[in-house]
Amino acid sequence: MKNTATLLISSPDHKGLVAAIADFLYQHNANILHADQHQDAQENLFLMRVEWDLEEFTLPLEQFAEAFAPIAERHQLDWRLEDGRRRSRMAIFVSRFDHCLVDLLYRHQSGELPCDIPLIISNHEDTRRLAEFYGIPFVVIPVNGDNKAEAEAEQQRLLDAHQIDLIVLARYMQVLSTEFCARYPQRIINIHHSFLPAFHGARPYHRAFERGVKLIGATGHYVTEILDDGPIIEQDVARISHRDAIDDLLQKGRDLEKVVLSRAVRWHLDHRVLVYKNKTVVFD
Amino acid sequence: MKNTATLLISSPDHKGLVAAIADFLYQHNANILHADQHQDAQENLFLMRVEWDLEEFTLPLEQFAEAFAPIAERHQLDWRLEDGRRRSRMAIFVSRFDHCLVDLLYRHQSGELPCDIPLIISNHEDTRRLAEFYGIPFVVIPVNGDNKAEAEAEQQRLLDAHQIDLIVLARYMQVLSTEFCARYPQRIINIHHSFLPAFHGARPYHRAFERGVKLIGATGHYVTEILDDGPIIEQDVARISHRDAIDDLLQKGRDLEKVVLSRAVRWHLDHRVLVYKNKTVVFD
Amino acid sequence: MKNTATLLISSPDHKGLVAAIADFLYQHNANILHADQHQDAQENLFLMRVEWDLEEFTLPLEQFAEAFAPIAERHQLDWRLEDGRRRSRMAIFVSRFDHCLVDLLYRHQSGELPCDIPLIISNHEDTRRLAEFYGIPFVVIPVNGDNKAEAEAEQQRLLDAHQIDLIVLARYMQVLSTEFCARYPQRIINIHHSFLPAFHGARPYHRAFERGVKLIGATGHYVTEILDDGPIIEQDVARISHRDAIDDLLQKGRDLEKVVLSRAVRWHLDHRVLVYKNKTVVFD
Amino acid sequence: MKNTATLLISSPDHKGLVAAIADFLYQHNANILHADQHQDAQENLFLMRVEWDLEEFTLPLEQFAEAFAPIAERHQLDWRLEDGRRRSRMAIFVSRFDHCLVDLLYRHQSGELPCDIPLIISNHEDTRRLAEFYGIPFVVIPVNGDNKAEAEAEQQRLLDAHQIDLIVLARYMQVLSTEFCARYPQRIINIHHSFLPAFHGARPYHRAFERGVKLIGATGHYVTEILDDGPIIEQDVARISHRDAIDDLLQKGRDLEKVVLSRAVRWHLDHRVLVYKNKTVVFD
Repeated sequence: MKNTATLLISSPDHKGLVAAIADFLYQHNANILHADQHQDAQENLFLMRVEWDLEEFTLPLEQFAEAFAPIAERHQLDWRLEDGRRRSRMAIFVSRFDHCLVDLLYRHQSGELPCDIPLIISNHEDTRRLAEFYGIPFVVIPVNGDNKAEAEAEQQRLLDAHQIDLIVLARYMQVLSTEFCARYPQRIINIHHSFLPAFHGARPYHRAFERGVKLIGATGHYVTEILDDGPIIEQDVARISHRDAIDDLLQKGRDLEKVVLSRAVRWHLDHRVLVYKNKTVVFD
Repeated sequence: MKNTATLLISSPDHKGLVAAIADFLYQHNANILHADQHQDAQENLFLMRVEWDLEEFTLPLEQFAEAFAPIAERHQLDWRLEDGRRRSRMAIFVSRFDHCLVDLLYRHQSGELPCDIPLIISNHEDTRRLAEFYGIPFVVIPVNGDNKAEAEAEQQRLLDAHQIDLIVLARYMQVLSTEFCARYPQRIINIHHSFLPAFHGARPYHRAFERGVKLIGATGHYVTEILDDGPIIEQDVARISHRDAIDDLLQKGRDLEKVVLSRAVRWHLDHRVLVYKNKTVVFD
Repeated sequence: MKNTATLLISSPDHKGLVAAIADFLYQHNANILHADQHQDAQENLFLMRVEWDLEEFTLPLEQFAEAFAPIAERHQLDWRLEDGRRRSRMAIFVSRFDHCLVDLLYRHQSGELPCDIPLIISNHEDTRRLAEFYGIPFVVIPVNGDNKAEAEAEQQRLLDAHQIDLIVLARYMQVLSTEFCARYPQRIINIHHSFLPAFHGARPYHRAFERGVKLIGATGHYVTEILDDGPIIEQDVARISHRDAIDDLLQKGRDLEKVVLSRAVRWHLDHRVLVYKNKTVVFD
Repeated sequence: MKNTATLLISSPDHKGLVAAIADFLYQHNANILHADQHQDAQENLFLMRVEWDLEEFTLPLEQFAEAFAPIAERHQLDWRLEDGRRRSRMAIFVSRFDHCLVDLLYRHQSGELPCDIPLIISNHEDTRRLAEFYGIPFVVIPVNGDNKAEAEAEQQRLLDAHQIDLIVLARYMQVLSTEFCARYPQRIINIHHSFLPAFHGARPYHRAFERGVKLIGATGHYVTEILDDGPIIEQDVARISHRDAIDDLLQKGRDLEKVVLSRAVRWHLDHRVLVYKNKTVVFD
């Protein structure tokens, strides 16, 4: 929990934008801690993230929207404000592979992930003991060919009940329905175990092995209605050689998946990710 | 030019293979400098590379095949022998982008690439002065929609006349015909400017930019009849961010292409690459 | 537990070595699974690792030494044999930072580390609950300025009682005495939180921050009597920038330390590491 | 040559800084292309880089200092303005190793380095032909134990005559005198062939080899009066193994040195580097 506010803005680029925003914040006595901006010349787009200390800020955040409206209108700003004093609420979906779940729960406990985790949903019992060790409520909702709609309805009910902001698919091995994905735009992060767009779809390590690539990868991305096609937040790779059998790829891949997913999640929770044109800006 | 011989072997795996080969070499007084082997358990395949000093080797290389035949037959070895005293003869194909050519010629001059380069073929005049600086014969063979067959015939005539062992496509922007590719199996190395199999085909940097990937790559591979599908020798990647416009990708990509291509070429020239099942083993 | 044996050899290099060893193994019907060798021309040294299936091997391992002695003597081999059916016994020393311990215990549980862990020793209570979750005996031996000798005596008693083969210092924040180190040559692995030899000694991240380096590192190495000077098994780095404060270095460093330490430990447990001249050969 | 201006600022951090600077630029109709800032909370320091289009900017740059003075004074700004229409003038110092020189000259010719190169100074004749190929004046000033002061005097005369802004030491194997270094603060960039602070001083690859490190590095840094101690602009590493002899380290090192030096030089020429407390901020 940080006593800061973060403003994220995208708008058509034109002169005076920075001055207008900086003036507004200065007038309310903001002490700016971080500011980063990006101009996409090709798209004539201005993107900005600014975070300030609330200590001496004179404008109550509940009045921010009203006070900021004239500037937002004049400059056609698409904006959102994030209150650092309110922790995001994150749910984790997991199946049997537990390496990403272990990693996320440990990072959460050690303070690396600024969020609450009121809910883990799994289609299997396997990770219950782990969830209990970290004191996180764990719910099993089995999914099979017949009950997918019911299962998703139950998932949504729980997500609503727990007021979940972000869903993390930590190697959850079920494809979510189009409707489910559409309900949580830029609020579902998935880890795909390949260097997208290479090997999208199933069994990427096996296909990487067969193609004889010299590097394997992992991709953290927002989930959209199109499988493995959402905005990429982070990717990384590891070197392999002819000496690596499938099992070695799986093992090296697990290490990749963990770090890539945790970076993507942390950056999202830090309100550092802006999506435009199916791409992300990740502010430093 | 090295006073060594290198033996490359692939065969069905079974007991006694290493002993048989090591005994044979020892009987002829070989001083082994490097030996590396690999067992692919899944394919039951044995792959080996062994290099020895010819100084005290008692078997003249022209008699090697005859002397080695009994072992090769008994163990069903698929083998080839490379004589380090004979420098490979390499031709470079290039179009207008000259960064890979500059890099290869400098490395050749400084002794990193153990080969002769008797021929550069281009479809443009642009790099003639550079070729002349390094004292390499430079031939322009224009290629257009109508004369492709004639152009390739002329290329083949030159490759034959110069007894070329290896053709390096250093950003040569023409697709070679199926017949041309088939004529030089595992003897044409191409640099593809993406992390294959992602973005195979044309304009990979533009497509990488549009997809919003966080890493770009380059791939050095043998050319086969199927475009961008040949055995991969080497790949590498570079990190990009939202701040990188297309031009930045192109620039970072040039650095990648140079190092990846030069590694693939050097490993080939060192007789360290074995192809099997459309993959490569690159012996250390 | 694998039904294999691994032979590690170092010796003066000369002709016939590979043949002699391969013949010996073949005569006893060994099915070689992996073989790797290295010649250090400068030192005239031959180093080899060979692993074979025990299924059809006709020589009982308890008779190996006697049967192998003539070859070993003739060729001045320095050798050791590892029996894959016997799991190594590993103790972990830890203080308050638990990230490496969490990582090692999870990898052990998931089968990545082929060893038994009968003992965790700590100078603090902090990680007891974690050890219990994984079912590993946990002993606290407090260490302070006055009781170091007694503490080490107690540690040695426990290490002996548990027949420990390998001690892993998972961010154990006490310097071991010269005598302790000398007692376990090449049997203590430490993770140092810098890219050695840069920033050896204390507080490496703080000193890296002050020097303004652009990459931070971690080093897994065997412990010798000289602090931070033992043979390096593995190193890796992560990129940082001016935006990273000390806390960011610590966090990025934790991820580095985990992967570097776990690689070093796994390679040791796989009997892939040979030490010579205060350096390591890590066979692929 | 770009029709832009770049303002680089460092100052004590306090409220209203961004607003004041943004307002000033907006009043003169600046179209901001890039802006990046950094707050160092520990040092209470504000650092900023802003680049804008001069096309519609209404304040002639020769009047900038006067117009900006009130703001600079009120906020205690330490600032400098760079005019993108004026190309920096760069001199290269080189000895016998030519790989960095080759790389810089090629990048300059291909447009990657926005500068003029009116002068190459060497203590050897070796690279004259290369300089001539690229049309750059080449002057040999031999240096030996006796004539160092005279040699440096002659170097300075030439640097003055050519109005040199930046000196790049492209593997120049002479140590510059304290006086010489002091004369060009933050205007001399050196490439050191190790991962500083490891192996500062002479023969770093040999010492890396002896220590048995698993990664080698290169460091691009500003030269100060203390050898190898100046602010680091960029570093990178490459993986090595026991198979790499000294010559392999040298070869892998050359590739590192080229890319690290060229990045450091390009960032300097783009006016993206700010020095404070013997460290650099490299704005994205």
